[in-house]
Amino acid sequence: KNRGRLLIKCPDQPGIVAHISKFLFQHQANIIESSQYSTDHEGGNFFMRIEFECPELPQKFGQMKESFINVAQDFEMEWKLQQNSELKRTAIFVSKQLHCLREILLEWQNGDMMMEIPLVISNHLEAKEIVESLGIPFYHIPASKENREEVETKQLQLLEEYNIDVVILARYMQILTSRFVSAQANKIINIHHSFLPAFVGAKPYDRAYARGVKIIGATSHYVTNDLDEGPIIEQDISRVDHRDEVEDLKRKGASIERSVLARAVKWHLEDRVIVYGNKTVVF
Amino acid sequence: KNRGRLLIKCPDQPGIVAHISKFLFQHQANIIESSQYSTDHEGGNFFMRIEFECPELPQKFGQMKESFINVAQDFEMEWKLQQNSELKRTAIFVSKQLHCLREILLEWQNGDMMMEIPLVISNHLEAKEIVESLGIPFYHIPASKENREEVETKQLQLLEEYNIDVVILARYMQILTSRFVSAQANKIINIHHSFLPAFVGAKPYDRAYARGVKIIGATSHYVTNDLDEGPIIEQDISRVDHRDEVEDLKRKGASIERSVLARAVKWHLEDRVIVYGNKTVVF
Amino acid sequence: KNRGRLLIKCPDQPGIVAHISKFLFQHQANIIESSQYSTDHEGGNFFMRIEFECPELPQKFGQMKESFINVAQDFEMEWKLQQNSELKRTAIFVSKQLHCLREILLEWQNGDMMMEIPLVISNHLEAKEIVESLGIPFYHIPASKENREEVETKQLQLLEEYNIDVVILARYMQILTSRFVSAQANKIINIHHSFLPAFVGAKPYDRAYARGVKIIGATSHYVTNDLDEGPIIEQDISRVDHRDEVEDLKRKGASIERSVLARAVKWHLEDRVIVYGNKTVVF
Amino acid sequence: KNRGRLLIKCPDQPGIVAHISKFLFQHQANIIESSQYSTDHEGGNFFMRIEFECPELPQKFGQMKESFINVAQDFEMEWKLQQNSELKRTAIFVSKQLHCLREILLEWQNGDMMMEIPLVISNHLEAKEIVESLGIPFYHIPASKENREEVETKQLQLLEEYNIDVVILARYMQILTSRFVSAQANKIINIHHSFLPAFVGAKPYDRAYARGVKIIGATSHYVTNDLDEGPIIEQDISRVDHRDEVEDLKRKGASIERSVLARAVKWHLEDRVIVYGNKTVVF
Repeated sequence: KNRGRLLIKCPDQPGIVAHISKFLFQHQANIIESSQYSTDHEGGNFFMRIEFECPELPQKFGQMKESFINVAQDFEMEWKLQQNSELKRTAIFVSKQLHCLREILLEWQNGDMMMEIPLVISNHLEAKEIVESLGIPFYHIPASKENREEVETKQLQLLEEYNIDVVILARYMQILTSRFVSAQANKIINIHHSFLPAFVGAKPYDRAYARGVKIIGATSHYVTNDLDEGPIIEQDISRVDHRDEVEDLKRKGASIERSVLARAVKWHLEDRVIVYGNKTVVF
Repeated sequence: KNRGRLLIKCPDQPGIVAHISKFLFQHQANIIESSQYSTDHEGGNFFMRIEFECPELPQKFGQMKESFINVAQDFEMEWKLQQNSELKRTAIFVSKQLHCLREILLEWQNGDMMMEIPLVISNHLEAKEIVESLGIPFYHIPASKENREEVETKQLQLLEEYNIDVVILARYMQILTSRFVSAQANKIINIHHSFLPAFVGAKPYDRAYARGVKIIGATSHYVTNDLDEGPIIEQDISRVDHRDEVEDLKRKGASIERSVLARAVKWHLEDRVIVYGNKTVVF
Repeated sequence: KNRGRLLIKCPDQPGIVAHISKFLFQHQANIIESSQYSTDHEGGNFFMRIEFECPELPQKFGQMKESFINVAQDFEMEWKLQQNSELKRTAIFVSKQLHCLREILLEWQNGDMMMEIPLVISNHLEAKEIVESLGIPFYHIPASKENREEVETKQLQLLEEYNIDVVILARYMQILTSRFVSAQANKIINIHHSFLPAFVGAKPYDRAYARGVKIIGATSHYVTNDLDEGPIIEQDISRVDHRDEVEDLKRKGASIERSVLARAVKWHLEDRVIVYGNKTVVF
Repeated sequence: KNRGRLLIKCPDQPGIVAHISKFLFQHQANIIESSQYSTDHEGGNFFMRIEFECPELPQKFGQMKESFINVAQDFEMEWKLQQNSELKRTAIFVSKQLHCLREILLEWQNGDMMMEIPLVISNHLEAKEIVESLGIPFYHIPASKENREEVETKQLQLLEEYNIDVVILARYMQILTSRFVSAQANKIINIHHSFLPAFVGAKPYDRAYARGVKIIGATSHYVTNDLDEGPIIEQDISRVDHRDEVEDLKRKGASIERSVLARAVKWHLEDRVIVYGNKTVVF
C-alpha cells in the first residue's frame, strides 16, 4: 500500500500545521485523516497524527524521512514517520484465564488486528494448545515471587531475540519489576479488571461485590512502576444488579475485559495512542 | 386507585411465597408485579415486593393490614403494606448548582415523579425564584462549618413540621452530622458526582481529569455516617476524551447526575429499593 | 446438581402463584429465582419461570412431574419441569463468515454456554478446520436457490439423527423454506445484522451507510416464515460516525452481532425466553 | 472573546490544508481545534472546521474575512468565517408535550446552550406560562390541516421579523409544507421519537411496542420535504423489556428525545454539523 503515518509531539507554537501540511503537499501526500491536540495553547505540548496516501510511497519513503528532519528540528519535534505496511511485532503474556488471549487471536484471525505474533509466553500450560495450533511458538516459563528476576531475564531475552515492539498482558496476573517495565516503557499494555481508579490491586470483583456497585468496568492501560496507575488507554463498563454474585461479576466482566483490551491494542497498533505525563491522547 | 404494594423482609425459609400468595388470593388481590431475592438460601435474608390490584382496596385496606399480622409473625417479617395512592412527602436540599433540582421539578411537573414536595431548603438564594414560582415554600438557611448544629436543628424541625418522608440532596454540598443522618436513616438520597468508589470526597471531576480517565460517572446513594460510603442505589457513566477539560467533565457529568438522581428517587418513591447491610436490592 | 426449572403459561386468574408455591413447598423445593409476567390482568396470559433447589432432585424428579399434572390441569397450563443438568443439544449453521461461530465456541469452551454441540453444518468449507479441531462433526452441504429442498431434507435428517433441540444460524445467510421453519418452530435462533425493524433483508450495512445513521445495531430473533419478522430476543447497538465506511460498519457490527447472538442463545439455553404472539418475554 | 471558527467545503485536492494553515498563521491565529473529512480522496468533497484563537480578533475580523476571499477562490470553497461571540437566533416550535422545550430551556438557563431565543411558537397554550415566565415572547398560532398555508405565512413572517437563524421543532407534531421547508433549508431541526429509519411516521412507540423491540430510540435530523428522511444529526437509544407498556415506552423515550435533541442543537449552534447529500458530518 501507499499509506503512511506521521506522528509528532512538540512545544506548541504558531505555524506547526502550516509547515507540516506544506511538507506533505510538496511530497504529493494526500491527507486521509488528521488529528491534533494541544495541552495548552500557551506553553503547552502539541500532538499530531496524520494518515496520508502517497503514490509510490515505498520508493520515496527514505527520501521523505530524510527531508522531514529539517522541519522537525525547527520545531523541536519528537516524531515518527512510518509506512502502514510495517506491522508491529507483539508478544502476548497470559496466565490461566484465556478469554482475553482468545479474543485477541480471534480478532487477529479475522484480519481486524494488524500485527505479527512471534510468540506467546505463559507461566502456565492452559494456553499451550490453542497457541501452538495457530503455529505460534509458546514459551512456558513458570513464575512466582521467588524466581521473578530469573523469569524476567528469560522473558527479556526472548523479547529481544524476537525483536518485539509490544507486550500485551492478557490477564497475566504477575507483577513485573521496575527493571522489566523500564526496559519497555509505554510498550506494555495491561487489562485491569476494574473501572480504575476504583479497585486498584487484587480481587477487584470481590471488592466490587462487597461495595454493592451497580456497574462494573475494565481498564486497559500502559504499565508503569506504580501498580494500576499507568496511563489509561480505554475503559468500558457493564451493568450488574443485586442478583449478581461474585462469579457473575467475573463472567460479565470477562466480556468487557475482552473488548476493552482488544480496542486498546488496535489503537496502539495503529499509533493512535500518545502518552503525555500520566495520560493518553487517543486520536 | 385499587393498587397496593406489599414489602417484606425476613429470614429465608421454605413456604414464605406460598403463604403470602395464599393471603393475597384470599383477599381477591391480583398480583401485578412480583419480585423476590434471597441473599443466601441457607440462613440468608429473603426480600419481596409485590404490587397488586384489589377491588375496593381503600375500603378493605385496614382489615387486610390487620389480618397480615399473623402471616408476618409466623415468618418474623419486617413488612409494609401500602396503597399506591399514598404519596411520599419529599424535602429537597439544594445549594448553588440547580441542574439536579431543575431535573426533579421537571419530571415532577411532567407527572413522572409521584410525590409531594412540601418544601425546599437551601443555604443559598439561587433556587428561590424557581421554587417559589411553583408555589413551593422555600427556606433559606445559610450554612457553614461553624453553625452546623444550629442549622441542622432548624432543618430537623422543618422536616418534622412538614411531616417529611424523604430528603433529596440535589447537590447540597454540605456535610451532614451523624445526628442528622441517624434521624433519617435510609431516607436521605444523595447524588455524588463520581463513579463510586472512585473519587470519594471533594472535587471528583478535578481528580478524574488528573487521572486521565476515559469515562466519568455519577452515583446516587443513601447517606450514612461514612462519607460517600452509603448503599448505592444507581450509577451511570459518560464517555470523555483527552480534549475534555475539567469544565467539560463538569458539564457532561451534570447530565448524568441529573438522570441518575432522578431514577434513584423514582425507585425510592415506588418502594423498589431495599437496603440490606451496605447494599441495595432494587426491584 | 439439585437444581430444576419450572416454566408455565396459562390464562391469568387469581390463585396461580398460590398453588404453584404450595406445590414447590410440599416437595421441599426452595425457590432460587422467580419471574412472572401477565400480558393483561383480565383475560390475559400468565407466564412464570421458577428456578428451584430441591434435595435429591434426581431421585424425586419423576414423582414431582407426575404430581404437577393435577395443578396444571386446574389452570389449563402449558408447562415444562426440567432438571438444570439436562443440556440442550445445539446445531450451529454457518456460512463463510466465522465471527459468530467463533464467539459461540469461545463462550462454550470458557464454560459459559451450557449446551452440547453434536454437529455444525455449513454450505462452505471455511469453518471445517476450527470445528473439527474441537472434535465436533462438521457437515459440508453446499446450498443454493436451486437445491434448497434437497439440502433441507438432508439437514432435517441430521437434526433428527442427532436429536437436536436448537438450531443457531450463526450468519448462515441462506433463506430457509417454511417446511424447515415449521418443523422447528421457536427453535431456530438467527442473528440479523441490523437494528430491526430497520433494514430488513439483504445488505443492511450498505443501507445503513447510505441512510447516514449514527448508530448501527444487531438483532437476534426466532426465525418464522416472515423474513426478519420473527420474535425478537435481544438487540444491541454501536455508535458510528461520518468517517466510517461500509467496511467499518461491518467490522463494528460484527462485534455487536457476536455478543447479541451469544446472549440470546444463553437465555434460550436457560429457558428464559418465552414466545407469545410475535414477541418474547425474557425472564 | 478572541475565538473564531472557519468552516469550508470544497472539492478535495492536495494543498488545501497547507494554504489554510498558512493563512491562519499569517493572521497570528492559533488553532485550538481542527477537524477535517473527505468523502473520497479522488473527486470527493473536502470539509473542514477550525476553531482558533486570535489576539484582537474583533478588530481584525473584517480584514481577515476579506483576505480569505482569495484563498477561497483558488479552491472553489464554500466557506464561513465567524466570531464565536455571535450567537445564533433560535425559534422554538412546540405543541402540547413540553419535555423537549423544558430541556432546551433548562440547558439554556444553565448557560450550556449558546443562543438567543427571540420567540416560541405553538399551536396550543400549554407552553405559554413557562415561556413568558422567562421573558420570551410566546406566539399562539392554532394549526390544523385546513389552515396550514395561512399559519405558515404567519410563522414565516415572524421568522423574518425576528431575524431567525434556526428553527427547533421540539415535538411540534405538525407537518410542514415544502414552501416552509425550502425557505429554511438545513435550518430546521426536528426530533423524531424513533430510531430512524425504523418507524418513520406517526405513532412510533405504539408500533415499537407491537413489534416487540428490546431497544427504543430517538433521532434528531434536519427537516426536508421527505417526512423523517432528512439528514440525521444524532441518535440515541434506551433498553426496554416485555414489562414496558406503550406508556412506559413514551416515558422512557421522552428522556432520550430530550438529550438527543439537546445535543443536536448544541452541535448545530457551534457549527459542528455539515450537511452533504442526505448525510451529516459532525465535527
